[in-house]
Amino acid sequence: MPFEELKPLLRPNGSKIVLLVMDGLGGLPIEPNGPTELEFAATPNMDRLAAEGTLGQTIPIRPGITPGSGPAHLALFGYDPLHHPVGRGVLSALGVGLEVRPGDVAARGNFCTMDSEGKITDRRAGRIPSEESAPLVEKLAQIKIPGVEIEVRQVKEYRFVVVMRGEGLSPDLADTDPQVTGVPPLPVKPTKDTPAARRTAELFNQWIAEARKLLADQPKANCVTLRGFATDPELPKFDESYGLKAACVAVYPMYKGVARLVGMDIISFEGENPEDEFAAVAEHWDEYDFFFVHIKKTDSKGEDGDFAGKAHIIETVDAALPHLLALKPDVLMITGDHSTPARLRSHSWHPVPFLLWAPASARPDSQTRFGETACAQGGLGTFQAHDAMPLALAHALRLEKFGA
Amino acid sequence: MPFEELKPLLRPNGSKIVLLVMDGLGGLPIEPNGPTELEFAATPNMDRLAAEGTLGQTIPIRPGITPGSGPAHLALFGYDPLHHPVGRGVLSALGVGLEVRPGDVAARGNFCTMDSEGKITDRRAGRIPSEESAPLVEKLAQIKIPGVEIEVRQVKEYRFVVVMRGEGLSPDLADTDPQVTGVPPLPVKPTKDTPAARRTAELFNQWIAEARKLLADQPKANCVTLRGFATDPELPKFDESYGLKAACVAVYPMYKGVARLVGMDIISFEGENPEDEFAAVAEHWDEYDFFFVHIKKTDSKGEDGDFAGKAHIIETVDAALPHLLALKPDVLMITGDHSTPARLRSHSWHPVPFLLWAPASARPDSQTRFGETACAQGGLGTFQAHDAMPLALAHALRLEKFGA
Repeated sequence: MPFEELKPLLRPNGSKIVLLVMDGLGGLPIEPNGPTELEFAATPNMDRLAAEGTLGQTIPIRPGITPGSGPAHLALFGYDPLHHPVGRGVLSALGVGLEVRPGDVAARGNFCTMDSEGKITDRRAGRIPSEESAPLVEKLAQIKIPGVEIEVRQVKEYRFVVVMRGEGLSPDLADTDPQVTGVPPLPVKPTKDTPAARRTAELFNQWIAEARKLLADQPKANCVTLRGFATDPELPKFDESYGLKAACVAVYPMYKGVARLVGMDIISFEGENPEDEFAAVAEHWDEYDFFFVHIKKTDSKGEDGDFAGKAHIIETVDAALPHLLALKPDVLMITGDHSTPARLRSHSWHPVPFLLWAPASARPDSQTRFGETACAQGGLGTFQAHDAMPLALAHALRLEKFGA
Repeated sequence: MPFEELKPLLRPNGSKIVLLVMDGLGGLPIEPNGPTELEFAATPNMDRLAAEGTLGQTIPIRPGITPGSGPAHLALFGYDPLHHPVGRGVLSALGVGLEVRPGDVAARGNFCTMDSEGKITDRRAGRIPSEESAPLVEKLAQIKIPGVEIEVRQVKEYRFVVVMRGEGLSPDLADTDPQVTGVPPLPVKPTKDTPAARRTAELFNQWIAEARKLLADQPKANCVTLRGFATDPELPKFDESYGLKAACVAVYPMYKGVARLVGMDIISFEGENPEDEFAAVAEHWDEYDFFFVHIKKTDSKGEDGDFAGKAHIIETVDAALPHLLALKPDVLMITGDHSTPARLRSHSWHPVPFLLWAPASARPDSQTRFGETACAQGGLGTFQAHDAMPLALAHALRLEKFGA
């Protein structure tokens, strides 16, 4: 449902909605006729909620499309990633905990190797390890350019992020990575002929020149390229789109960053286990209408190819769930942002199990266990992840009827 | 997924995809609580693939819409027919094996009956049988117009196709069939005021005048009307859209023609049985990434109202399937382009059974038989036919992830 059609229907009523995301939840069997990670895990609490509530499965982006973490979460928050693209520079910055405000320009950076003629010989500087690149990023962070503020942060190995902040900047800039070796890096060029884009290109070129001076004596990482220039996409915020005061409980920077893009407050808390996260929700229960709780390790275990480990993380979430249920949410959604089957050791395109529990309003189906097979036959059917928020609002009785 | 969003994700990897289309596969029971044609057929091979793979059902165009063969195949090839329309003249030409290249103009033709005052008395010339119209089409094929090349071919009864080929032609022309009797046929008029459209209208009017001279002494078919002027829609081709070198194995001209529109090579072979078609695939296995294999007779039997005959054709395909499986495709899709229930003796709008088998990456559901009821409960859910190609690419591990 487009935001502009949804807005006139909003009816705030003090109900509470929780979106519990186990990152990369969807899985695959590791042996023929075997269970998936979620089906293998003992989840008595989720199974009870499945029996009382309604199951379904979500398509994160479009059928067959494997999402990155950014687009996958935006979709769950109700923003179709094809209609609300967020630039690569911004997602990278969020991933390392750098804030990108409207007007800031963020870019991804690579260390690269340049020969004596100024031509790139290795676009990734021999994939130098993070220990070697960390002190180089420190050097880059010292660069000062008059009139703007610049933050630089390491991502991993040869990769880093730069955020430039100041008046009158523009992200309309082309990548400097030529994508091939044997040629010099490209200068930063504006992609639109505006004063702001020309000025920002000039500022980034100054920054690159300074960076090359500082790196001149490096054997491998003696040059840099920048790409994915982008700014805060100024997405509609949760309060205006949904009438919800929303908070994020997450351990990793990326998820806090994406939550901030849609206007959520970020709750600080100690610890990193599911019960710590649920305790943080409890502590702020009265302050918010909506809580996004993010569990990272399901995805990490999936990427490690650790089937049993992923199932175990799911079990720890299930075991802690009574703390969350004790708060008596009106609507609880338990799902993933995408699938990360241990068998594939990576994100995948497979539909994602979705559990909607809303004691006052959900229509139970015949499913009694939370798992991929049950979800594929659930009462919500197969639906786009960006439809989850309207479903949540409806089950919270927060939507008027459409039309007379 | 729009092509422009899909393209940057393509990752060619040498995997092989087969799309096996049993035309008009979807069916209906002929008695209460009875099986459909597919459910009635003994299909041990497909049932095994169903158990190992994932089922679903496709909506060819939109819910409730019965497709023609052209749009139904375009949808399976990933081209939403509402966004990639192909003109009627082109589809008719393809159906009788006439090629329509970019710049050619194809039109459907009707023989009609005109009275002495030049008014149409029968828009279909008394539905003259094909034996009577064949020699008349031969006459029309003799017409020469300077500056262009013209091909005419019989369709059936009072229907034929004309293709005009030459420099500077335009398909922006209005139908000449007035849709009512008692009035003269309309002259060919341009629908856009361009020199090409004016010139092409003039050329077709000359052709019609010649046709009327040749037909003047006919008792019924003494005049013609033309409609559905169209040219090659220049669809994106399989290699650019999907990074796939694609081939078509089909017996009937229509399916070869539609496959050619999307850039497939057409494989020539002897015979017309499923094992002949699979042998043709085997012979060219190393040359292509993607094979579209078309089985016509399921549809023909459905249109004949022959329930048992349609089930038997499905059984012959199932029996031949081991030849295809021996090639070890990475992804095999078995489906129809639309439903043709014997009970309705025509194409229908019902969802179409879809089987996706991909041993390395498919998520099995709990279904163990290939049939309409099982497919409606399958793990892929109900989806648009034009999403089948992204699903195939994903299961062939040919897509990078979307966003960071």
